[in-house]
Amino acid sequence: MKKLLYLILVLFTISISAQIEKMEPPFWYEGMNYNQVQILFYGKNIAQNQVSVSDNVVITNVVKTENPNYVFVTINTKDVSSRILHFTFRNGRKSFVKDFEIKKRRPNSALRKSFDSSDVIYLLMPDRFANGNPDNDSVKKLQEKGNRSLPGGRHGGDIQGIIDHLDYVQELGATAIWSTPLCEDNDKGYSYHTYGQSDVYQIDVRYGTNEDYKRLAAEMHKRDMKLILDYVTNHWGAEHWMFKDMPTYDWFHQFPGYAQSNYRMTTQFDSNASQRDAKYCMDGWFVPSMPDLNQSNPLVLNYLIQNAIWWIEYADLDGFRVDTYSYNDKEGIAKWTKAITDEYPYFNIVGEVWMHDQAQMSYWQKDSPIAKIQSYNSYLPSVMDFTLHDAFGNVFNENNAGWNDGMIKFYDNFTNDFLYANPNNLLIFLENHDTGRFNQNYQKDFKKYQLGMTVLATMRGIPQLYYGTEIAMAGDKGKGDADIRQDFPGGWESDSNNAFTNSGRTAEQKHFFDFTKKVLNWRKTSKAIHNGKLMHYIPENNVYVYFRYTDDETVMVILNNNLENQTLSLSRFEERLKDFTSADEVISGSKISLEKELSISGKTAMILELK
Amino acid sequence: MKKLLYLILVLFTISISAQIEKMEPPFWYEGMNYNQVQILFYGKNIAQNQVSVSDNVVITNVVKTENPNYVFVTINTKDVSSRILHFTFRNGRKSFVKDFEIKKRRPNSALRKSFDSSDVIYLLMPDRFANGNPDNDSVKKLQEKGNRSLPGGRHGGDIQGIIDHLDYVQELGATAIWSTPLCEDNDKGYSYHTYGQSDVYQIDVRYGTNEDYKRLAAEMHKRDMKLILDYVTNHWGAEHWMFKDMPTYDWFHQFPGYAQSNYRMTTQFDSNASQRDAKYCMDGWFVPSMPDLNQSNPLVLNYLIQNAIWWIEYADLDGFRVDTYSYNDKEGIAKWTKAITDEYPYFNIVGEVWMHDQAQMSYWQKDSPIAKIQSYNSYLPSVMDFTLHDAFGNVFNENNAGWNDGMIKFYDNFTNDFLYANPNNLLIFLENHDTGRFNQNYQKDFKKYQLGMTVLATMRGIPQLYYGTEIAMAGDKGKGDADIRQDFPGGWESDSNNAFTNSGRTAEQKHFFDFTKKVLNWRKTSKAIHNGKLMHYIPENNVYVYFRYTDDETVMVILNNNLENQTLSLSRFEERLKDFTSADEVISGSKISLEKELSISGKTAMILELK
Repeated sequence: MKKLLYLILVLFTISISAQIEKMEPPFWYEGMNYNQVQILFYGKNIAQNQVSVSDNVVITNVVKTENPNYVFVTINTKDVSSRILHFTFRNGRKSFVKDFEIKKRRPNSALRKSFDSSDVIYLLMPDRFANGNPDNDSVKKLQEKGNRSLPGGRHGGDIQGIIDHLDYVQELGATAIWSTPLCEDNDKGYSYHTYGQSDVYQIDVRYGTNEDYKRLAAEMHKRDMKLILDYVTNHWGAEHWMFKDMPTYDWFHQFPGYAQSNYRMTTQFDSNASQRDAKYCMDGWFVPSMPDLNQSNPLVLNYLIQNAIWWIEYADLDGFRVDTYSYNDKEGIAKWTKAITDEYPYFNIVGEVWMHDQAQMSYWQKDSPIAKIQSYNSYLPSVMDFTLHDAFGNVFNENNAGWNDGMIKFYDNFTNDFLYANPNNLLIFLENHDTGRFNQNYQKDFKKYQLGMTVLATMRGIPQLYYGTEIAMAGDKGKGDADIRQDFPGGWESDSNNAFTNSGRTAEQKHFFDFTKKVLNWRKTSKAIHNGKLMHYIPENNVYVYFRYTDDETVMVILNNNLENQTLSLSRFEERLKDFTSADEVISGSKISLEKELSISGKTAMILELK
Repeated sequence: MKKLLYLILVLFTISISAQIEKMEPPFWYEGMNYNQVQILFYGKNIAQNQVSVSDNVVITNVVKTENPNYVFVTINTKDVSSRILHFTFRNGRKSFVKDFEIKKRRPNSALRKSFDSSDVIYLLMPDRFANGNPDNDSVKKLQEKGNRSLPGGRHGGDIQGIIDHLDYVQELGATAIWSTPLCEDNDKGYSYHTYGQSDVYQIDVRYGTNEDYKRLAAEMHKRDMKLILDYVTNHWGAEHWMFKDMPTYDWFHQFPGYAQSNYRMTTQFDSNASQRDAKYCMDGWFVPSMPDLNQSNPLVLNYLIQNAIWWIEYADLDGFRVDTYSYNDKEGIAKWTKAITDEYPYFNIVGEVWMHDQAQMSYWQKDSPIAKIQSYNSYLPSVMDFTLHDAFGNVFNENNAGWNDGMIKFYDNFTNDFLYANPNNLLIFLENHDTGRFNQNYQKDFKKYQLGMTVLATMRGIPQLYYGTEIAMAGDKGKGDADIRQDFPGGWESDSNNAFTNSGRTAEQKHFFDFTKKVLNWRKTSKAIHNGKLMHYIPENNVYVYFRYTDDETVMVILNNNLENQTLSLSRFEERLKDFTSADEVISGSKISLEKELSISGKTAMILELK
């Protein structure tokens, strides 16, 4: 009997002293706008404790849930300068202490600049870009091991690989990098895409450490480049520790359990939609392996806001890309976005809104006149120009323009710019990691690439390149995602083709790279492209002409999508040509005299700096 | 010498006494909101005269132009009761008098009701519908003579023909008639469509007289039916007397003379458009035979406003359809539309806005949230739902629904209803006189017709039928306009097939007619269809389900576009099915018990009145 009593006592003590397994955020910063920090403490039966904190800091809220392993403690850090706070957890006579640091903040952190239309963004998938550290390809604690022979496996690319090739990206003329997610994804397979994260406070060890990520940002800032984090608010992976031991049942959307999204994003504003359809779009899961987060639960929302702000502050980030933006809880995601831009007023965030109608895409941009119809404001500064992407699809194969064919597809896209609150803050792109490759669609036709890249480099909005486009990488979405996410040649030591260096490139790679480099580096110098207005003319004979202009600079772009040479009568453009008499043509480097007519070869682009 | 003096005197006198060839409007009405009437007097050198008027009426403005044959005299009729006014024209000692009548107005004329979503509109082309008076097929004063053997010739249909078949239209279940234009069109050829008018105060004698048109309205009102006039503000015909002797050079858009419109209506709101492109769209002519009216000239604008109001008041009209609305001078047409609806606040006007994007169509509707972005308001109550028409195009041939195919095309159209100021005041249609015929596209497939007509009869908006659709008339736009504008069988005495009567119809015509009649006459009884809200569900397996409902009535519509029978789980629709336990199915006339599931055959429509 004595022995039994002793055993019970021991077990009881152990259960208390299990203490804290997780504390999130792991620290915070002084002088934050977001100063009511809700700290999640996780440990076996942690909720049985009473919590107090040192330094006269006020606990404004304690939330316990149906799961005794969680307690959420909100403290007011408004006037708390940098220091270590001590949280005391007490259960009867037993107690223990957990430290929480308030760190010094970088000067002017809140007023950090972000990416904008003066930038060119290079989108890469870290597992597929370059393997800077072969030692971390497989790690004990994470299920999926490196195996480059599997198209959908982990190939070993990492943060060190990105750092090693920043000079390459810079030489190309890109000024920012959007890497697909880097936080831990412990899925058994396909973890290389890393959209099913298992720990959002931890860089996946196979990519590196949190410190490595911070170093990447610092190395980029040295080069005046910007780092954009790919944030996933909509879902986590099924291996996430909080999915395995849910803080509250409704931390995730429950039907109960899994129900698939219907993916019909129009239900989010359709005044004729049933509540059921709207709910299944927003709350349904993308796939069973991606539990859908419930941002209408304030605990979840706070968690996501703090995590996002924490990463900006910790790693010194320059922007976000947000995955599946329009699948989130509509009100919740607006609060999330507003909280971040309240903290960092100049911070740019581009949301993935994959729709095919400008009014519908406009809906999701901050201060949208379309969303205003329903008194909604997402606060999201930027959306992706997917209708322009649609236009890129086949346009350069349409040699003979009918009423709706050829260059009119570009023209039509921009006729609806008035529906956007800010068309110059749209992300424009030929392709990304979820679409077919441009050079696949156009079979590496260099002339068509020139036309496409010229649009990308000169149109309103923020150009985004997908890694490898510049060296004619192809990939067929029809063959699966792996085909459009192939390894960058030269990113692995064993690669025989190294496209990172001029000498290592094939003739074709060089051809594509040199053109891209020329146009993007020229773009850096052109204020008319960065912030100028757009004026475009109705395409005639499959020739599209537009101008980008400020009071001081005018750039005229001519895209001849016709197979034949075309001669333009310039009088049609007098509204913008004004008194200009000559031009420097950027692509050919030639000087051009502006007479009555201008001739342009078939399938050719011209970028004219007017003089 | 004496003889010469006498001759000069005689010539001088004649030139004065040529007097008035035209006076427009020919009369006006007392108690009008539009009471500053600008009367056009036309006569050789009329401008040489001084003008005065009797009865102490005040002349507020006299406008003379560079053409001495015109004078525009504005009088204030505000407090002038019905009477004959006498205008005196004096030149030196010579003078003459012209009478102008202010007529009594119909009681409550200003508050007249108009067509709305409780109506079904029957669109017909008068030359092709029925020849009620063979004596007026050819007339001396007008160039083109009747010749039914020419597909594009005048076939002899007329107003009497319409009057003779009002019972037919009423039996079918239509409650309003939109006839294509009836005013004089003295073109040498193709005058049967009558969109190139030569006198807008005069019914074309080959259709009848102004009195006949008035009688048509009266006959319709007896049947509680409504008459809609097809007004053309954008252009007249080249045979118009005012084009042959222009009041002012800028009465028409001059480049100088003809320039073709670029037809790119997006230029009217595109913030990136050049002024040149916008001008060529709006001011360019449709075809050389249709001089483009300049509504930015106040004389033109007044003329068009007064002419429109005059017809409403004179013929006792119930609504307008306006041709090529979005090609008009944008500000001018808004003023025109506002003036008419200021005079008749409940008057409905539907504009032809042939665009393929809901935001762009919404732009032209009164109080549009889209146009508001640019502080524009067209004041046009109704636009045509051309994107729905696009959806009708091939949808019933899409048996296997992919992400974008089949019923989703209807669904997608209505997801953007929130972009409209008033989606229930959109004109919906399977086809019109400018499009391919529905029964051509679908090869007179009765099941597909049932599906299409069910959408038309039950969706939000105002259904418009095109004459002959109800008897399976086909016509291929690819073969030219004449093919889609064939004569209604039975409209000519010599016709062997008379589809106007039950006994005269072929079995196929009867099949189509009886179904249409059943659905349209049922529609007359359903307030849920007239004014109810719409709730629709994402199509599954190519089955589209939607509800129209008020507080008192609920109608459930099921469209199975799948070839196979489908079984629906009804729990999905509980938001609207509520406590209803049974339904009357309109098409089959059967009673249905609402259990857990509902079965529907392939390519079948059901209209359920829930009980």
